[in-house]
Amino acid sequence: MSDALPQGATIGILGGGQLGRMLSVAAARLGYRCHVYDPGTNPPAGDVCAQVTSAPWEDEAALRAFAASVDVITFEFENVPTATLDLLEAARPIRPDRRALAVSQDRLTEKQFLRDLGLTTAPFAPVSDADTLEQAVAQIGTPAILKTRRMGYDGKGQARIMAAEDAPAALAAMAGADAILEGFVNFSLEVSVIAARGLDGRVAAYDPGENLHEDGILRQTTVPARLTGSQRADAVLLAGRILNALEYVGVLGVELFVTPQGLVVNEIAPRVHNSGHWTQNGCVVDQFEQHIRAITGLPLGDGGRHADVIMENLIGNDMDRVPELLGARDVALHLYGKPERREGRKMGHVNRIVAQG
Amino acid sequence: MSDALPQGATIGILGGGQLGRMLSVAAARLGYRCHVYDPGTNPPAGDVCAQVTSAPWEDEAALRAFAASVDVITFEFENVPTATLDLLEAARPIRPDRRALAVSQDRLTEKQFLRDLGLTTAPFAPVSDADTLEQAVAQIGTPAILKTRRMGYDGKGQARIMAAEDAPAALAAMAGADAILEGFVNFSLEVSVIAARGLDGRVAAYDPGENLHEDGILRQTTVPARLTGSQRADAVLLAGRILNALEYVGVLGVELFVTPQGLVVNEIAPRVHNSGHWTQNGCVVDQFEQHIRAITGLPLGDGGRHADVIMENLIGNDMDRVPELLGARDVALHLYGKPERREGRKMGHVNRIVAQG
Repeated sequence: MSDALPQGATIGILGGGQLGRMLSVAAARLGYRCHVYDPGTNPPAGDVCAQVTSAPWEDEAALRAFAASVDVITFEFENVPTATLDLLEAARPIRPDRRALAVSQDRLTEKQFLRDLGLTTAPFAPVSDADTLEQAVAQIGTPAILKTRRMGYDGKGQARIMAAEDAPAALAAMAGADAILEGFVNFSLEVSVIAARGLDGRVAAYDPGENLHEDGILRQTTVPARLTGSQRADAVLLAGRILNALEYVGVLGVELFVTPQGLVVNEIAPRVHNSGHWTQNGCVVDQFEQHIRAITGLPLGDGGRHADVIMENLIGNDMDRVPELLGARDVALHLYGKPERREGRKMGHVNRIVAQG
Repeated sequence: MSDALPQGATIGILGGGQLGRMLSVAAARLGYRCHVYDPGTNPPAGDVCAQVTSAPWEDEAALRAFAASVDVITFEFENVPTATLDLLEAARPIRPDRRALAVSQDRLTEKQFLRDLGLTTAPFAPVSDADTLEQAVAQIGTPAILKTRRMGYDGKGQARIMAAEDAPAALAAMAGADAILEGFVNFSLEVSVIAARGLDGRVAAYDPGENLHEDGILRQTTVPARLTGSQRADAVLLAGRILNALEYVGVLGVELFVTPQGLVVNEIAPRVHNSGHWTQNGCVVDQFEQHIRAITGLPLGDGGRHADVIMENLIGNDMDRVPELLGARDVALHLYGKPERREGRKMGHVNRIVAQG
């Protein structure tokens, strides 16, 4: 506690989307103010924070003024440009730190980090041109999936290679960016663990959630997941190893495949995670408050779960269901205040309480 | 639903204290923006709303600009000056409306309204000078309590009359303001009902909470209250009668004394209420969201309770307990971000989950 930020301190958040928005609300509940930095105008987090800076990531004057106004910096997504982080880091602590970002910004670095930790990932090989792609396909086989090493999000920058002749088109889809070829994993279930590590090194994890993706976008998370007790324990322990190896501070999301051979790590996200939204209505301390506790030096909450919850994203025209959802029992609605619907755009989510206690 | 405010509409909130703060967060969750008007600088609600106007209640230009920027107006406390409300009401709907305010701004009007509804109140008589006070004391007897008719809050503007000779000092404490003498009520329990009425006339109520006051300030609310089933039903029905009689739109708090002769109405508050804060961790739709649903024309949530909760206010130096509370299990902390502690100042509250399900 002695290192904890005092009441009224200001947290800088890079990115003002729905994650920044929910972080800002959680920060307020703990008596902190938030200053959101976002390149867009009227970012969703702007409705619930003390201050907003709308400026490009390259605006050094705006970045300097932002840093000077805050006590600690965090982020809601992992693709903040390196030069931006360099500038900010010189002025204020960034939590989680650059190492976590370096690992998660690059799919190849991430996979190598996980493998070095002794964790299982999909088979993978680096791809930079037609030759390395040919070698990678030969090594990994098909079907496989080619992904850009950086800036992937919600299924963008990815191309499937079902047979060797798909390779040229897949490579073209990378538009010259360095890539990684990943083998398919035969899994029965996708789950994720949302875990946190405090400034004091203590770790806490939420019960794993079972995820359903559609078109590369998370559709639904259910807790409890259909896991055995030992799978659940493995998932949580594995998240703890990642947190400790990175000396991580904050909340981290770990996506896992459940296979007959054990758990396979799909990817890690160094931030609060869509598949952890259920904690808002299933836990006393949700993932957003947990993240704020971690980065401000407060003790972590215990992560205990008091309800069975199904979290469902409201994407694009799912917003037409809002009137019905408002009238449903045991449904908590969380809308993001985005003025414009677009196909594939996350507009909100609902937490449906299936059972309490 | 057809009359409901669309996503992205703006709610104006008069008053930017902790109630306005928690209303603003709830509004955001439903996709609305809030513009807070408060005479103070840096009001607590300013940390979590889209816009703040810091200007006196008498600043007509500021009030007009505020009204023009919002779609509906509500308030977090009942003592907004009449001229301010006149100006705003000409521009935008105020919910709940003037009638609810007229009744609750004046203790005498309030008592008469309740009595006209057939509800039981403490015995009362109007007092404007030494003569009417003498008559009132003769009629009601001692002990009794003299209160200013208007602007009472957290025990201010009140003086006890234990015997007739206390009358002159009590009258002096009113500083010339019109007053009301109220007889003491012998009660075993203080409870309150938080209830809501939607724009469509439907009514929903939360389970009554049992209140503990100290020095005229709410200290603790416990749900469930120690009431019989019929007392619980009476309390909820009585709140419904008040809501319907006022054609009320929004959340209302009704404070009740439990006596051997039945329930006695102490006072009503035309707003979200401190004794309803437990709903944040005991219900899927809390009192703040319920209020926002009502005033925006959305359907009310059902008010079901899924946990036994003890809400405790953190007042002044209670903030020293925050480190311990952060480490406690099943305790949800809600701080108001007030920079300065003062004796008797509400700095936050905790909801302690005693049992789930």
